[in-house]
Amino acid sequence: MPTDTPQPAFVLVRPQMGENIGAAARAMWNFGLDRMRLVAPRDGWPNPKAVAMASGAGRLLDEAQLTADVAEAVADCHFVMATTARARGLTKPVFSPERAMQVAAERIAAGERVAVLFGPERAGLENEDIAKANAIINVPVNPDFPSLNLAQCVLLTGYEWRRAQGAITPERVDMARADWAEQIEIEKLADHYEARLSEAGFFFPEHKAEGMRLNLRNMWSRMPLTRADVQTLHGVLRQMVRWKDRGD
Amino acid sequence: MPTDTPQPAFVLVRPQMGENIGAAARAMWNFGLDRMRLVAPRDGWPNPKAVAMASGAGRLLDEAQLTADVAEAVADCHFVMATTARARGLTKPVFSPERAMQVAAERIAAGERVAVLFGPERAGLENEDIAKANAIINVPVNPDFPSLNLAQCVLLTGYEWRRAQGAITPERVDMARADWAEQIEIEKLADHYEARLSEAGFFFPEHKAEGMRLNLRNMWSRMPLTRADVQTLHGVLRQMVRWKDRGD
Repeated sequence: MPTDTPQPAFVLVRPQMGENIGAAARAMWNFGLDRMRLVAPRDGWPNPKAVAMASGAGRLLDEAQLTADVAEAVADCHFVMATTARARGLTKPVFSPERAMQVAAERIAAGERVAVLFGPERAGLENEDIAKANAIINVPVNPDFPSLNLAQCVLLTGYEWRRAQGAITPERVDMARADWAEQIEIEKLADHYEARLSEAGFFFPEHKAEGMRLNLRNMWSRMPLTRADVQTLHGVLRQMVRWKDRGD
Repeated sequence: MPTDTPQPAFVLVRPQMGENIGAAARAMWNFGLDRMRLVAPRDGWPNPKAVAMASGAGRLLDEAQLTADVAEAVADCHFVMATTARARGLTKPVFSPERAMQVAAERIAAGERVAVLFGPERAGLENEDIAKANAIINVPVNPDFPSLNLAQCVLLTGYEWRRAQGAITPERVDMARADWAEQIEIEKLADHYEARLSEAGFFFPEHKAEGMRLNLRNMWSRMPLTRADVQTLHGVLRQMVRWKDRGD
């Protein structure tokens, strides 16, 4: 059963190898996309090689809408984007994948249906297909090596779709949940080290002692220490003193 | 010949299938990255299957640096990030790929060397590898189907590297002038503490020793340590041992 989340349809146009269709299904489902449409797959449909490759995402193949041409595949859509390496002289807005999926998210949120076209492995989309699109998506690859395959192109677009969802923050810091030490704990840690290291004769020679103390304190307060870190560092020092006292 | 552009090294840790190493090379070069490092590839090196798959990006394999372990692979790096699906209880900043590559771009612009670790196909990175990293990269995949393969993970990270080239904000200006410790210095610091604390009987009881060691290593690699900090921390430990030896 398809997910309820409104989302773009990914349309594979005249895909050749079954393996690539399966890999594209996996790439889609990695980012929670499950509306695949297929236009005239070269080796017919269903395709056992696609099924074998799709493992875990086979449902997308079962539910894929099969059509004979691009026009039929996107008939119900309000906005269509075509992925291509070159704009080929067609005057059309060119979006980065990021911008494209932002636009898709906005339109879908407004109740529109959006489709993204992906061309066949070797040749890519034909001008006739591209002409049916409202905009072009261009992945910023290395111009000396623009060799993205079908599933990779699907993967990057799906990734940007997921990024475009509000749920995904640009930076999720697990550290925020960390139990950070309070300033007083850092202060006590610094005191502890300073006291023991004084006894141990660390702050030497005398005329450098002041600067050494300051540097050490500065170091502790500059570190992002959790409560557990502070306990560990106390423990390290205590154990060294115990070792000394044992005299072994 | 490698490109002149400063860039992160991508480190494949114990990769299994040669095909995946070749596909990772292609994925890197798609986004203009050509510094590959290999840690203990399962099937030895060079690997003809990697070469066959890398077509067009074979140069990356020829120039890949081969090392026996992760520590050696990142010895010269100032900042190391580990790609992983789970943070696994280690306290460490978690970046999205976008944020991670922005951070990488900023640090590299400030003259640092940055590495990204990618784990083996099935198991992913081990906690011991992750403990060597300063931060974690987490790709926001579908929690019901988090099945990115090695080359796909490399592809998305490379894509974000390329995206980060456009928009580098001059952040961290003051810190950029600091003389940051290299990874090998952190490693030696961790070794030093582990060795002395073992002698001192710190890692006790026995059944907790392994976890205590890992936590301590993780703490050092999480701290933003300058060369001077590292010297200070060595000095602290040395002085405590001297104190013990004096027996006063």
